Amino acid sequence: MTTVVNKEAQVLDLATAKSNIKAIKTEYYQIPLAEVLSDAKHGDHTHFELVVCRVFTQDGFEGVGYTYTGGTGGRAIYSLIEDDLKSSLVGQDASRIGKIWEDMLYKLHYVGRGGLLSFAMSAVDIALWDIRCKRLNQPLWQVAGGANSSTRCYAGGIDLNFSEEKLLNNIQGYLDRGFKGVKIKVGKPDYREDVARVAAVRKLIGKDIIFMVDANYSLTVETAIRFAKAIEQYDITWFEEPTIPDDYQGYARIAENTSIPLAMGENLHTVYEFNYAIQQAKLGFLQPDASNIGGITGWLKVADLAYINNLPICTHGMHELHVSLMSSQPNAGHMEVHSFPIEQYTTQPFIVDENGRAVAPNVAGTGVEFDPALVGPHLIKQS
Amino acid sequence: MTTVVNKEAQVLDLATAKSNIKAIKTEYYQIPLAEVLSDAKHGDHTHFELVVCRVFTQDGFEGVGYTYTGGTGGRAIYSLIEDDLKSSLVGQDASRIGKIWEDMLYKLHYVGRGGLLSFAMSAVDIALWDIRCKRLNQPLWQVAGGANSSTRCYAGGIDLNFSEEKLLNNIQGYLDRGFKGVKIKVGKPDYREDVARVAAVRKLIGKDIIFMVDANYSLTVETAIRFAKAIEQYDITWFEEPTIPDDYQGYARIAENTSIPLAMGENLHTVYEFNYAIQQAKLGFLQPDASNIGGITGWLKVADLAYINNLPICTHGMHELHVSLMSSQPNAGHMEVHSFPIEQYTTQPFIVDENGRAVAPNVAGTGVEFDPALVGPHLIKQS
Ligand SMILES: [Mg+2]
Ligand SMILES: [Mg+2]
Repeated sequence: MTTVVNKEAQVLDLATAKSNIKAIKTEYYQIPLAEVLSDAKHGDHTHFELVVCRVFTQDGFEGVGYTYTGGTGGRAIYSLIEDDLKSSLVGQDASRIGKIWEDMLYKLHYVGRGGLLSFAMSAVDIALWDIRCKRLNQPLWQVAGGANSSTRCYAGGIDLNFSEEKLLNNIQGYLDRGFKGVKIKVGKPDYREDVARVAAVRKLIGKDIIFMVDANYSLTVETAIRFAKAIEQYDITWFEEPTIPDDYQGYARIAENTSIPLAMGENLHTVYEFNYAIQQAKLGFLQPDASNIGGITGWLKVADLAYINNLPICTHGMHELHVSLMSSQPNAGHMEVHSFPIEQYTTQPFIVDENGRAVAPNVAGTGVEFDPALVGPHLIKQS
Repeated sequence: MTTVVNKEAQVLDLATAKSNIKAIKTEYYQIPLAEVLSDAKHGDHTHFELVVCRVFTQDGFEGVGYTYTGGTGGRAIYSLIEDDLKSSLVGQDASRIGKIWEDMLYKLHYVGRGGLLSFAMSAVDIALWDIRCKRLNQPLWQVAGGANSSTRCYAGGIDLNFSEEKLLNNIQGYLDRGFKGVKIKVGKPDYREDVARVAAVRKLIGKDIIFMVDANYSLTVETAIRFAKAIEQYDITWFEEPTIPDDYQGYARIAENTSIPLAMGENLHTVYEFNYAIQQAKLGFLQPDASNIGGITGWLKVADLAYINNLPICTHGMHELHVSLMSSQPNAGHMEVHSFPIEQYTTQPFIVDENGRAVAPNVAGTGVEFDPALVGPHLIKQS
């Protein structure tokens, strides 16, 4: 039997689809941090940038997407969305998220392939997923996979410049809030100081709290190996970004010389880079960030890649959104609860339950809506 | 013997160095093309973007740097220079180019690692090299190495949408202008049409003109192999970007299945990517573009990498500047003379000699100064 399809009618239908994108609005914020936070490679953070992208459909849905930075590049991301992406997004069917993701990638591919383009794509993509979930009247954790509705998590400090006393007070604060895992920054000029801080933290938290360290790619391969061997005795769950993310073979050399698994991902901005990293860097944990890997679409591609390679999927930053993605995956590892408190500017509370698990919001959409009263004072520009 | 150095005096001296950067000005242009030019993956080009960065030193030097795009992302590049890089560049010693290059890379590393950041860095870096050459009162080809003062080159058409008749007329135009090498776009929906065009061009140009093809990463690995085998009989110097630049192993599979060497580089925006590509993609030619690999500093790093790996160094685009870089290198391959005619907006003529070699300008600096009367009408914004 042959089915005859009226192609012209199909095209007309698509062009007038109710789910077409009607408008896009972009907002750029600079949000100050309560105190200056430092790590080994990015120096001092005084604020973070937030770029919010709102997508409106013909049939009245509004999707909220966003990305953030450590303080630079936000206006360029805003420009990419406003000056380069917007014109070709308006009129497209918002439900064809995969197609739109490819279109964005290849429209700006020559100036892109990662970096800022991935951030801009992320903001748009998250808004489209928000619309999809709202249309389904389902929460993101369910739409993205539904494995669970909560996830293991840990508190990640940006605490390299904290004195040891302040470091320990800060960690105690995490324990008091119910976290069952903590991470500290390392990368002091003399690695033996890092070793002493690791020892002090493990002493404080006892043996049942999971504990990671993060060098923000500041070390040479040789120092990383020396440091890793010195802290193996403290039961470290992972050693994050020991050296530059461009040196997969260097990661492999470190991995071959320590029993501590390595983790990376916050600086890998294409799905292909994750593939290379898996093949060559001998990683134990992958940490894609939906704000810089091309949104939820990019993050889920990496999650699938992790699954297929028998690796736990983790995250960097943006926990108010990642809580839903991590909950949704069968191979979820540990979600970072980041020191940029984006969740304090949203309408939905961020919940850690009595078992130290972060609980995905049970509302239709991504569960991340910004409170105008809270973010408004930090708005720099909008379209 | 111990030499005692007055550290404080040194610091003071550096802080007040006459070569310090006093100001930076940025200009953003959209320059229309004479006709719409198309390739297999970027679609139609109607204009190119030009971002010019002018660096001024305390002692009165002005360096001109620039980058360009195929039509998107230029305003984001402008934003990166103006909003994020400028403030930390002013006051720095313009002669410490390597330090400034690292500073730019790591200041924006989190949103960078290639892509748009590499374009922005390129514009700044080229301006710094221009100042260095002007200060030395020497041309760039000499300062960058001085191997030669001219380079082999070929004319690269963006001609995928040209009829076969127009394609051949266009190629004849290149021969009439004295070019000894030509490149055409491939990537038609049916690769056999590409084969016919290749055959027609080889018939026109005879056996002594070198001839390349460029698929702008539009093919599957399997089609690329099939196509390559079909055109081997036409003495093809290289097959450029057969498939996506992210698939080094795919490149290797193609290379293992054809005698035609592969070329890539215009879409590799970090020096590390070139390293991976050399190690994994079995390339015959490397084609970094100083406008998107971090300027002259980035390009020279790749040229050194090529040299060490016994590979010819080539280029993509920006021939008015690359002519000096290619001339300077002992392992120079073939320079692309690109279809974006940036040289028509500069004060220096672009010269191809009677042997078909492009001749590096013999003036102090990079030899690229924009003519205000020519670019002025296309200025969109400036700082
Ligand atoms: Mg980290
Ligand atoms: Mg090309």
